[in-house]
Amino acid sequence: MRYVLLVQYDGTLFSGFQRQKKGERTVQGELERAASEVFGSAVRVAGSGRTDAGVHAAAQVCHVDGETSIPAEKLRECLNRKLPPDLKVLASRTAPDGFDCTRAVKKKTYVYRAYFAPAVLPLLSRYTARLTAKPDVLRMREAATLLVGEHDFRAFSSTGSSAKTSVRTVYHIGISEKKEPAADLYEIAVTGNGFLYNMVRILAGELFAVGCGKSTDGIRTALEKGTRTSLAGTMPASGLTLCSVDYGIELFPKEE
Amino acid sequence: MRYVLLVQYDGTLFSGFQRQKKGERTVQGELERAASEVFGSAVRVAGSGRTDAGVHAAAQVCHVDGETSIPAEKLRECLNRKLPPDLKVLASRTAPDGFDCTRAVKKKTYVYRAYFAPAVLPLLSRYTARLTAKPDVLRMREAATLLVGEHDFRAFSSTGSSAKTSVRTVYHIGISEKKEPAADLYEIAVTGNGFLYNMVRILAGELFAVGCGKSTDGIRTALEKGTRTSLAGTMPASGLTLCSVDYGIELFPKEE
Repeated sequence: MRYVLLVQYDGTLFSGFQRQKKGERTVQGELERAASEVFGSAVRVAGSGRTDAGVHAAAQVCHVDGETSIPAEKLRECLNRKLPPDLKVLASRTAPDGFDCTRAVKKKTYVYRAYFAPAVLPLLSRYTARLTAKPDVLRMREAATLLVGEHDFRAFSSTGSSAKTSVRTVYHIGISEKKEPAADLYEIAVTGNGFLYNMVRILAGELFAVGCGKSTDGIRTALEKGTRTSLAGTMPASGLTLCSVDYGIELFPKEE
Repeated sequence: MRYVLLVQYDGTLFSGFQRQKKGERTVQGELERAASEVFGSAVRVAGSGRTDAGVHAAAQVCHVDGETSIPAEKLRECLNRKLPPDLKVLASRTAPDGFDCTRAVKKKTYVYRAYFAPAVLPLLSRYTARLTAKPDVLRMREAATLLVGEHDFRAFSSTGSSAKTSVRTVYHIGISEKKEPAADLYEIAVTGNGFLYNMVRILAGELFAVGCGKSTDGIRTALEKGTRTSLAGTMPASGLTLCSVDYGIELFPKEE
C-alpha cells in the first residue's frame, strides 16, 4: 500500500532533506524513523525532490510504502506523535493508482524571501535573508523575463548536481515588495518544471544584484555560455522555502 | 550622557528581559554585557518594561548611561557587533532632556498571534500559538469591547506581579483574521497605558475561548470580582510580541 504525505518543515536544524549515511539529522531520516515506528517495520520515504541544508518547506510531498491497519487519514496524527516540532505531517491519504511523488512532479514553486534594513532583524532572520542595499523591483522584474521559458540553466547551478540534463522550464517568476515599519520585504516566487542544485538561490542572488544596479548582461552571458562567472552569488539557504508541488491533480483537497 | 536604543529580539532562547542573578540568559543581561564592552566600563541598561521568558519584541525601547566618544548613531553598529543574532539594536540616539524609558511610557502595543490548523505547523510555531478550535472573530470583537477602557485588571494577572495598582487603561483591541493555505491566522493587537504580569496572554486566552463558544460572563465576573476563576487560561509566550512603545514624541524618525 502506498500513502502520500503533505509535509512541512523548518529547515534550520536539518542537514537537508536527503538521508545521510553519517547519521546527520535529515528530513528523510526523521520521516523514515517515525514511519518505521508507526508501521512496525523498516520503511522508506520518498520525496518530490531534495531540499538543501537549511531550506524550509511549507508543503513538501512524500510517499511511503507499507502495510498498516491505521486508516490513511489517521496516519498524519500517528506520525506527528513520533515527529519533532520542526517537522510535521499536514495531511495523509492513500496514493492514487501508480502515483510516484518523485516522478509525477509537474511543477514546483519556491519562494525566496529577503529584507532590506539598516540592521539585522532577529524576528526576520530565521526565514528571510538580509540585503545590504535596497533593490529596485522594476529592474528585477525586467531581468526575470530573461529567465522565464525553457533554457539550459547549467550556469545557475552549483557543482555536485547529479541531473542528467540542465535544461529546465521556468513558467513564472513573481516579485513582490512590501514595506513594513522596520524593513522592506521582498519575495521572489519561481515556478518551474524542476530546479538544479542551488538554482533558485543563484537566480535570486542575480535578480537582487540586478535590482541593486548590476547589468542584465550577466544573465544573458550565463544563459548563452553556460558559465557562472558572470553571475553574482548564491543567496543563503534560510531565505528559501519550497511552497508547493503540483502534480496536475488535487492531491489534498481543502477540508472546507 | 544618556542614549536611547530601539531593540528587537526573538525571545525563544531568553529567560525574559530582566537581568537574573542566577546567570540565566536575559535580554537586559546581554545588552549590559555588550554595552559595557563598547563603553569600556560597567553600565546598566533600562527597558520600557519587562517581557516574560519566550516573549518577543519587535521594537523595545531601552536607555543606557555612559561616556563614550562614539557618535550616538554609531552605537547601533558597535553594539550589534557584540550582540548575538537573536538580539539586535535597530537604532540609537542621544536621549531627549530628562528622558527615562521606563517612566515616560505613554502607551504600549502588544500583538498576540495564533493559528488554527489540523496539525502543528513548524513554520508558524516560533511566533504563533496553535488553537485547536476555530474562533469566531465577531464574537471575539464583541467581547473585546468589555475590556476596553479603565478597569481593575487584577483578575487578568498572574501572581508575582509587583505593580502598586492593578488599574490599567486599555485604549484599543484590534482583532484580525487572515486565511492562508495551511491555516487560519489570528492577531489580537492590544494598546494600553501599561500591562500587568501575563495580562495580554490571559486576555488573549479569554478572547479566543469566547470566540470558540464561551460566554462573555467570564469577563464580566472577572472585572467585577477581581478573581481569575471565571477565566480560561494563559496563552503560551511564543505567540506574544511587544510591537511598539509610545512616548508621545517621535523618538526614532523614519530614515526615508
